[in-house]
Amino acid sequence: MRRIRVGLLGLGTVGSGVFKALKSNRDVILKRTDLLFEISGILVRDRQKRREVDGIQPLLTTRFEQLLEQKVDVVLEAIGGVEPARTYIERALKAGCHVVTANKELIAKHGVELDALAQEKGVQLLYEASVGGGIPVLGTLRHLLKSNRIHRFSAILNGTTNYILTRMETEGISFDQALAEAQQKGYAEADPTSDVDGLDAAYKLAILGRLTFEVDVPVSQVSCRGIRDINPWELQLARSLGYRIKLLAQGEQYGEKGPLSLQVGPALLPFSHPLARIEGVHNAVHLEGDIVQDVTLVGQGAGERPTASAMVEDLCNVCCLPADHGCSAGEATLLPVDTGGSRFLFLETRESITQAKVAEVREVLRQIGLAVTDVSALREGKNGLAIILRRWDPSYPAVLLAELGLDVTHVVDRPVFGAVSSSDPALAASVS
Amino acid sequence: MRRIRVGLLGLGTVGSGVFKALKSNRDVILKRTDLLFEISGILVRDRQKRREVDGIQPLLTTRFEQLLEQKVDVVLEAIGGVEPARTYIERALKAGCHVVTANKELIAKHGVELDALAQEKGVQLLYEASVGGGIPVLGTLRHLLKSNRIHRFSAILNGTTNYILTRMETEGISFDQALAEAQQKGYAEADPTSDVDGLDAAYKLAILGRLTFEVDVPVSQVSCRGIRDINPWELQLARSLGYRIKLLAQGEQYGEKGPLSLQVGPALLPFSHPLARIEGVHNAVHLEGDIVQDVTLVGQGAGERPTASAMVEDLCNVCCLPADHGCSAGEATLLPVDTGGSRFLFLETRESITQAKVAEVREVLRQIGLAVTDVSALREGKNGLAIILRRWDPSYPAVLLAELGLDVTHVVDRPVFGAVSSSDPALAASVS
Ligand SMILES: NC(=O)c1ccc[n+]([C@@H]2O[C@H](COP(=O)([O-])OP(=O)(O)OC[C@H]3O[C@@H](n4cnc5c(N)ncnc54)[C@H](OP(=O)(O)O)[C@@H]3O)[C@@H](O)[C@H]2O)c1
Ligand SMILES: NC(=O)c1ccc[n+]([C@@H]2O[C@H](COP(=O)([O-])OP(=O)(O)OC[C@H]3O[C@@H](n4cnc5c(N)ncnc54)[C@H](OP(=O)(O)O)[C@@H]3O)[C@@H](O)[C@H]2O)c1
Repeated sequence: MRRIRVGLLGLGTVGSGVFKALKSNRDVILKRTDLLFEISGILVRDRQKRREVDGIQPLLTTRFEQLLEQKVDVVLEAIGGVEPARTYIERALKAGCHVVTANKELIAKHGVELDALAQEKGVQLLYEASVGGGIPVLGTLRHLLKSNRIHRFSAILNGTTNYILTRMETEGISFDQALAEAQQKGYAEADPTSDVDGLDAAYKLAILGRLTFEVDVPVSQVSCRGIRDINPWELQLARSLGYRIKLLAQGEQYGEKGPLSLQVGPALLPFSHPLARIEGVHNAVHLEGDIVQDVTLVGQGAGERPTASAMVEDLCNVCCLPADHGCSAGEATLLPVDTGGSRFLFLETRESITQAKVAEVREVLRQIGLAVTDVSALREGKNGLAIILRRWDPSYPAVLLAELGLDVTHVVDRPVFGAVSSSDPALAASVS
Repeated sequence: MRRIRVGLLGLGTVGSGVFKALKSNRDVILKRTDLLFEISGILVRDRQKRREVDGIQPLLTTRFEQLLEQKVDVVLEAIGGVEPARTYIERALKAGCHVVTANKELIAKHGVELDALAQEKGVQLLYEASVGGGIPVLGTLRHLLKSNRIHRFSAILNGTTNYILTRMETEGISFDQALAEAQQKGYAEADPTSDVDGLDAAYKLAILGRLTFEVDVPVSQVSCRGIRDINPWELQLARSLGYRIKLLAQGEQYGEKGPLSLQVGPALLPFSHPLARIEGVHNAVHLEGDIVQDVTLVGQGAGERPTASAMVEDLCNVCCLPADHGCSAGEATLLPVDTGGSRFLFLETRESITQAKVAEVREVLRQIGLAVTDVSALREGKNGLAIILRRWDPSYPAVLLAELGLDVTHVVDRPVFGAVSSSDPALAASVS
C-alpha cells in the first residue's frame, strides 16, 4: 500500500465531488491500485462558509503556503480561472508535486508552458476533467489511440448550450426561456456568457486540438460563435429538413503536419451523424483515425460526480501510468473559417411564407446563377423560410432580401456538417 | 529508440491489417513512443498461398518453434479458435514474451488461466481487439475508469447481427436475405452460426463481464439467444411503438460482490436509449459507473483496420503501460435469466389483425387479470399483433392463443430494456 498525500484547492461543486468520491470509493481504489489517498489540506477563500461535507473544518485553510508545507504528493486544483490558479499550479510543480486540474481556461491559455514545466520537473500535470467532464477523452488520446493519426474530430463540448438547444427544439421555447430553465436546474451559471457565447467550448477545443494534432493552439485564434441568435423556428425548420443544430467544436488537419481548422459554432448535422442524437447536458467527441476509423465517446460533460470522476481517475493515473508529454511540433497554422461548402440559410419573417413565395425564391436563386441541384432543400414555415444550398457565397442573403421584399426580422446562415441530404426521410417527415 | 521484435501468428484479415498498420504508422509510433517494431516472422498454415502484402515471403513460416527461436519480445496472435492458438500463447508466455491477441473465443474460455500465467511469468497478455474491434473498451476499463464501480453495462458487440437487423428494419427484407447481403459484403462468414446465434457476442460478454465485475465468468453459463427468429414485421411493429430491437449483451451486478446477470439476446430499446441508434456494423458499449455516471463508447466492431488498430495499440501498451492484472475474486454467481419485468409479445398471423380483434385482445388481457395500466402498448399490423406488457408471466402467450383463435405462425416474446414508454412520440409516429 502506498500512501499519497493530496492537497485540494477549492471545495465548490468539483472540489466537494472529489472529496466525496475519494471517501466513498477508497476501498475500490485501494484494491485496484494499492493506493491510499489522504487529503492533507483544502484551500478555500472563506473558512467560515457553511460546507456540505461534514468534519472538514480542520482541513480548511486560506493560505496556499500552509498546504504546500504539508509535503503533499499531488495537488488537485478545482478553483477555476487563471489567477491565482496558475501561480498555485506553478508553485506546486516547482515543489515537485504532480498536479491534476479541471481548469479549461487555464489549460487552454497556459497549458503549453505548464506542460513544459511539469516535464522539466519530472512530474505530471493531468487535466482530463477540463474537457468533456467524465468522458475519458484525453486519456483515450494519450494512452489508447497512440498509434493512430487522428485527422479530424467533431465534438459537443458544452452541456449547457446542448441542453438549451434540446429544450428549444423539443418545447419550442425561446433562447431566454431555455436559458432561465438551465439556470434554475443548475446547468448554467448566473453569468452564462462563457457557455452561450461558445468560449467554454473554445477552451476545450484548443486543448483537444493541441493533444490531437500535437501542435500549440493559441486559444485566441480559435474561431468562435455562440447560440444567442438561434430561435426555436430555426431549429424546427432545420429538423423538418432532416438536420439538428448543435454547437459544434470541430478540428481538422489538412495533410500531415498541414494547417488546421479549429472552430466552434452552431452547425447543422444530419440525423444520421453520431452527434446529432446527443441530448441535454451530454457531451460527445467523434474522432476519425487512420487505422481505427471512427470512435465516438459520449457521457456527462459536467456536474459534481462526472467531473470528480475524471479528477480522481487522473489522481490514480499520475501514480500509476507513465507521463505522456506528447510531442508538440511548434505553433499551429490556423486556416481562416471556410465560408464555402454547404450552408443553411434561415430568414425569420414577420409574415407567413406561402408556397407562392417559395416559387419566387426558387426563381431568384436561379437568377443568382444556382442550378436546381445546388438547392438541396427549401422549406417554408409560419415564421420563416429555410434553404440549404450546396454552393454558397456570402452575398446570397443580401441579394435574396433585396429581390424578395420580405419583412425579415432575422437572417442567419450556418454551415452544414456531413453529407447534405435528408438522409433519414422518415425522421424528417415526422416533424414536417 | 527501443527495438521490439514481434512474432505474428496468422496473416488473414487481422494479421495483414496489423502488418500494414505497423508499416504505414511506423513514424507516428516511433515519434510518440520511441518504439520501433520489427516483424521477425509470421506463422501461417500455407506458405504457398498468394498474399496481399508484398515482400513478405521470407518472413513466413509454418513452424511456431522457428518463430520463437527468433527471440521475439511480443507475440501477436491472429489465428483464431482454441487450438493451436492456446498452446502457442502458453508457450510464448512461458518463454517470457508479452502476448497480444484478438481471439475472443480463446480468452472467453481460457482467459483466467492465461492471465494468471502471464502474471506468474511477469509479462503482459492484452486482448483489446477481442471485444468491440477498434473501440478501446478494455483499456478504458483497465486504465481510465479504475476508481469507478461499474454496476451495469449494456452493449452491442456483434456487428454482423446489428447490420442484419438494421437492414431488415429499414428495407423490410427477411433474415435470410439480410444475411446473404451481409455475407456478400464480407460482414458475415460463410458459416454465420457463431454470429447469428449470439455465441460471438457471448464470448465478448464473458470477457467484458470478467473485467468489469472482477470475477471469473464461465462462458458456458452466459445465457445466449440469437436473432434467427426475428422477422421484419416484428422490427417494424416494435418501431411503431417507439422501440428498436437490438441483439443486446447485458451485464449487471446486484449489490457489491453480489450475484451477476449476464445475457445476450434480442431486446427492445426505446429510441431514447444511447444504443438504439447504433446502426450497421458499429458496436457500442454503455457503462454505468457510480461516480462517472454513464459513458458510451461507439466504433467499428470488426474489419481489418479497426481490429488491427486495437492490436497495434495493445502492442504499444505492453511496452509502455504497466500491467493491470485486475483482482478477480473467485467465480461469479450467475442469476437465471429474469423473465419478469416489461415484455414485448409479438404474434405473427396469417390474417390481417383488425381493430375489432384488438378490442377482443384487450378483453382477454383484462380477463387474465391485467389492469389497463399494465398494457403499455397494443398495435395491430398487416401481419401481426404486438403488445408491450409491464407485467409478464410465461403463461400469457398460450392463454392469448387459446382465447383468440388467431391463425398464428410465429410467437415471440422479448425483454424490453429501459423505461417502458413511447418516449419519443414523434419518431414513433413517423413509422406508424
Ligand atoms: N462545475 C462543473 O460541472 C465543472 C465541470 C468541469 C470543469 N469544471 C472546472 O472546475 C473548476 C471548479 O469549478 P466549480 O464549479 O467547482 O467552481 P465553484 O463551485 O465556484 O468552486 C470554486 C472553489 O474554489 C474556491 N476558490 C475560489 N477562488 C479562490 C481563491 N482565490 N483562493 C482560494 N480558493 C478559492 C472557492 O472557495 P469558497 O468555497 O471559500 O468560496 C470554492 O470552494 C473550474 O475550473 C471549472 O471550469 C467545473
Ligand atoms: N476479422 C475480423 O474483423 C475480426 C475482428 C475481431 C477479432 N477477430 C479475431 O481475429 C482472429 C483472426 O481473424 P481473421 O479474420 O484474421 O481470420 P482469417 O482471415 O481466417 O486468418 C487466419 C490466419 O491464421 C492462419 N492460421 C489458421 N490456422 C492456423 C494454424 N493452425 N497454424 C498456423 N496458422 C494458422 C491462417 O493461415 P493461412 O493464411 O495460411 O490460411 C490465416 O493467415 C480470430 O480470433 C478472430 O475472432 C477478427
